[in-house]
Amino acid sequence: MNEKIKKNLERLKELNIDMFGKDFLLTWEKSDDEIEATMLFTEIIKEMHKNNISTKVFDSGIAVPVFRDNSTRTRFSFSSACNALGLGLQDLDEKKSQIAHGETVRETANMISFLADVIGIRDDLYIEEGDRYQREVASALDFGYNEGLLHQRPTIINLQSDIDHPTQSMSDLSKIKDHFGSLENLKGKKLVMSWAYSPSYGKPLSVAQGMIGLLTRFGMDVVLAHPEGYNVMDSVIDVAKENAEKSGGSFTISHDMKEAFKDADVVCPKSWASYSVMEQRRDLLHAQDFDGLDALEKSCLLENADHMNWEYTKEMEALTNNALYMHPLPADVTGLNCEHGEVTREVFDSHLKDTYHQASFKPFAMMAMIWLSKFENPIAKIEEVLENNKKRLNK
Amino acid sequence: MNEKIKKNLERLKELNIDMFGKDFLLTWEKSDDEIEATMLFTEIIKEMHKNNISTKVFDSGIAVPVFRDNSTRTRFSFSSACNALGLGLQDLDEKKSQIAHGETVRETANMISFLADVIGIRDDLYIEEGDRYQREVASALDFGYNEGLLHQRPTIINLQSDIDHPTQSMSDLSKIKDHFGSLENLKGKKLVMSWAYSPSYGKPLSVAQGMIGLLTRFGMDVVLAHPEGYNVMDSVIDVAKENAEKSGGSFTISHDMKEAFKDADVVCPKSWASYSVMEQRRDLLHAQDFDGLDALEKSCLLENADHMNWEYTKEMEALTNNALYMHPLPADVTGLNCEHGEVTREVFDSHLKDTYHQASFKPFAMMAMIWLSKFENPIAKIEEVLENNKKRLNK
Amino acid sequence: MNEKIKKNLERLKELNIDMFGKDFLLTWEKSDDEIEATMLFTEIIKEMHKNNISTKVFDSGIAVPVFRDNSTRTRFSFSSACNALGLGLQDLDEKKSQIAHGETVRETANMISFLADVIGIRDDLYIEEGDRYQREVASALDFGYNEGLLHQRPTIINLQSDIDHPTQSMSDLSKIKDHFGSLENLKGKKLVMSWAYSPSYGKPLSVAQGMIGLLTRFGMDVVLAHPEGYNVMDSVIDVAKENAEKSGGSFTISHDMKEAFKDADVVCPKSWASYSVMEQRRDLLHAQDFDGLDALEKSCLLENADHMNWEYTKEMEALTNNALYMHPLPADVTGLNCEHGEVTREVFDSHLKDTYHQASFKPFAMMAMIWLSKFENPIAKIEEVLENNKKRLNK
Repeated sequence: MNEKIKKNLERLKELNIDMFGKDFLLTWEKSDDEIEATMLFTEIIKEMHKNNISTKVFDSGIAVPVFRDNSTRTRFSFSSACNALGLGLQDLDEKKSQIAHGETVRETANMISFLADVIGIRDDLYIEEGDRYQREVASALDFGYNEGLLHQRPTIINLQSDIDHPTQSMSDLSKIKDHFGSLENLKGKKLVMSWAYSPSYGKPLSVAQGMIGLLTRFGMDVVLAHPEGYNVMDSVIDVAKENAEKSGGSFTISHDMKEAFKDADVVCPKSWASYSVMEQRRDLLHAQDFDGLDALEKSCLLENADHMNWEYTKEMEALTNNALYMHPLPADVTGLNCEHGEVTREVFDSHLKDTYHQASFKPFAMMAMIWLSKFENPIAKIEEVLENNKKRLNK
Repeated sequence: MNEKIKKNLERLKELNIDMFGKDFLLTWEKSDDEIEATMLFTEIIKEMHKNNISTKVFDSGIAVPVFRDNSTRTRFSFSSACNALGLGLQDLDEKKSQIAHGETVRETANMISFLADVIGIRDDLYIEEGDRYQREVASALDFGYNEGLLHQRPTIINLQSDIDHPTQSMSDLSKIKDHFGSLENLKGKKLVMSWAYSPSYGKPLSVAQGMIGLLTRFGMDVVLAHPEGYNVMDSVIDVAKENAEKSGGSFTISHDMKEAFKDADVVCPKSWASYSVMEQRRDLLHAQDFDGLDALEKSCLLENADHMNWEYTKEMEALTNNALYMHPLPADVTGLNCEHGEVTREVFDSHLKDTYHQASFKPFAMMAMIWLSKFENPIAKIEEVLENNKKRLNK
Repeated sequence: MNEKIKKNLERLKELNIDMFGKDFLLTWEKSDDEIEATMLFTEIIKEMHKNNISTKVFDSGIAVPVFRDNSTRTRFSFSSACNALGLGLQDLDEKKSQIAHGETVRETANMISFLADVIGIRDDLYIEEGDRYQREVASALDFGYNEGLLHQRPTIINLQSDIDHPTQSMSDLSKIKDHFGSLENLKGKKLVMSWAYSPSYGKPLSVAQGMIGLLTRFGMDVVLAHPEGYNVMDSVIDVAKENAEKSGGSFTISHDMKEAFKDADVVCPKSWASYSVMEQRRDLLHAQDFDGLDALEKSCLLENADHMNWEYTKEMEALTNNALYMHPLPADVTGLNCEHGEVTREVFDSHLKDTYHQASFKPFAMMAMIWLSKFENPIAKIEEVLENNKKRLNK
């Protein structure tokens, strides 16, 4: 068995985890040990895939992706992850379903779940509603399972809500740990989650929220930087503050990009909409007021345009401590896919390997989350699978 | 081996069935023994899933869902069923295909079938055409198979046509049997398949037809209740009458909801369009006459509105013999998803477990139909799989 | 082991092939031995399927179909092929993805590939761009794999580009070989790839190009027949000429359908657009100039109408040497799906079995291409699988 896997297994046995049968909705609902376990499993499973070892533990069963917003990488990560575990996929395409027909969330959740093991939900468009929807589904499934209508309780994986984007932030954590060598090494490092200018509007807040809600747990000095008015949810700010205090790190908010980036070890410059814009947008979407949406877009883009200097450039990078550049992708890259964006092409291209590497953890993070929810003794199970050492493709 | 499975296997061995290589289009094309066998297999396979026993009998192969109407539960049932048997799914999405391009049913049927084992077809929008289309596909597949162009003849499963909805009615039968304890116990029980008011129009007749075409086979007193003008297909009425006579039960038609529901043991109040409306709708759909469709909808809703009192209420329920409430879902529930509907929220909610339980049989009924068509000796095969006792998920 | 498989395996061992890790984009990038090997594998795998022998060599992994044009048979062939090898499917639906959002081909290609083994691409609408796009994806994957970001390099299969349609032409080759008994027997046979009238416009050139680019390799007398102005790509004409010279056959161009079909042994009358029309169409599509597209369509149909006599009729057939009729389907059949088309219904119907049989090779040709790219020793691997003799469906 390879050394990395061995070391992770040893560490795992020291952790105290209680994730069997649980959903994965917000990282801050999981204990420090559970977060670390998820990360260690992510690494083990990635290593297994690299070494061509099968991770197929389901003989059959379906996973249900529910995407209420477009997606490429999250969709592929989820499909790939479920496939690698042995699950089939059946999309819940709300346009092709009878949901408009008037059925309730409780009903739909049960109707799709008779043979389902996992439900992945992306619902990030509607502020104050995405997370609530996921919990409504969860509670419907509890009803069905407790009443004996479902033979198994599908695990819900949050594929991005209005509040958190845990499969992203857990991938980010894995990347940052890989970069610095250990979780221990994160202590005292400066991480900046920064707003950046974009010629589009209405991007979810949950990437930024996910980052500050998770990365404050490891003793880092975390800075959330954004122009005034682009604030995120208060409840997540509270989580970040509390995490920082507990972990011996710090959490601060800055409205000056340059100051924020000074001596940073990790930077993630990325656009998002302000909370109040997301509220207006949600109401207009519900009202199907397309003229209103156009007007909102125009006014927001004008507002964004006041902050065009929030761009990650060579000069900005020079202020940092040779910082690791992170982005969940796709980025708005000046001169590549837009005239003015979040980052210059020069800087973006020089970090291409890092951003792709960051993304490469996502399917394995999803597999880790599912694994930890599905096996009573997830460590014994992975040891069993490693022992079998079945090849994924016997070349 | 569990007692329920054992008992079912014993009974199965007494039955005379000839289902190998056959499609499942209308329940009344199957003998009483074949219907019972399908039900017994449904129960066995459901029990296997509950007990985490793998039912994966296909190493590979694809199943093709063809949905010419929206669907959630039938789609998920079919996907889940095929996955649990080991088949992959490939949708025939007629919008993304070259069918509009002018190819014939014969051609398409063969082109999608070179490695296909099952084709599930939902075609319920066009009266007098859905069943015909399924038979056209069947005959095209016979051609391909007999000429040696297809290595295997895919089994067609009717996922709802203009005439019958056998995966629904077989689930209904399983639920009713479960409720009363045995098929024997159905004798003399009163079942009412009733029209109910709905603020929508154009719902297929095939749920009602499927119910009276199947449930008249067990010595029950079956009543079809609807306002004048909402009649179903004559040919299915004939089937129901003949079944009732053979089975020692009865079949009657009533135009008085209250009278019909008196002392009922099972009720299924559900809206459908009248046959003549479905004819007009079909012609307008073919002509793509959207103004005509709007006008038809308006006039039908006005007509429906004359029968708003055809609602299943507490008062109506009080007339019954503590009846089992059934609905294929989604229902139009007064005060939940519409102002006035088929059933009051109070009554609907008090029977939630029953309607969900009713739905839970559907994927297993589909698996039973496929199993019986694919194995020369389906009983020996399931005994072999039970003997292997492979876990679906080895927790 | 069956005789056909045995004979093919013996022949395979005489061939010199280097296909491991290679994409399959154009047949003329493969050596004669490699083309023959692909054909022999196609036949072996088809025979295995016929004899119910499992070909599942992947434990898990996904295949990604990318269809930039509608498709039924290629889509089903690809899905079926990948399923039979053990791969799951995840469509890249560019409308549901964030590609419009501004991400680059390099990025998307890597993001979908972390656990992907095969990517199949159909991109035939845009002349001079389809093949280029496939190579851009290929080079992006090389980058990801070489940098260690991808654990495996997905194989790209060209499912039809602006230049070639190798899964079609390889199926055509298999059919022609089957018809004449051996590749040796093709020498001196006359094959006519002919333009034919169609009431539609803008059909890709790549079927015709694929045919003349491949079938000129076997000593046949290949004629490309079309009205003046309907010329194909010069570069493919050069390939055809060179092939013909090397193989001891001939390649000529004719503008007279009757003359061309005289004494033909194989004919493939099929419509395509002229190169210059495809150029105009591409530019109008990019400009989203729908009025321009309408105008172009009208003028092209008018132009086509001058050549309505380019139809394959009983009279035309009488000129041939009892020729094998081929078509990739769907065909424009006079009196079946159009008023005037490529072929009369009488002739088309009399060759139905042949065209369906021709199509039946396609999924197996795809499996052969994937197999040859994925295994270092593909012959040893298939011998191992044959040895195991696992049943696909144990009836």
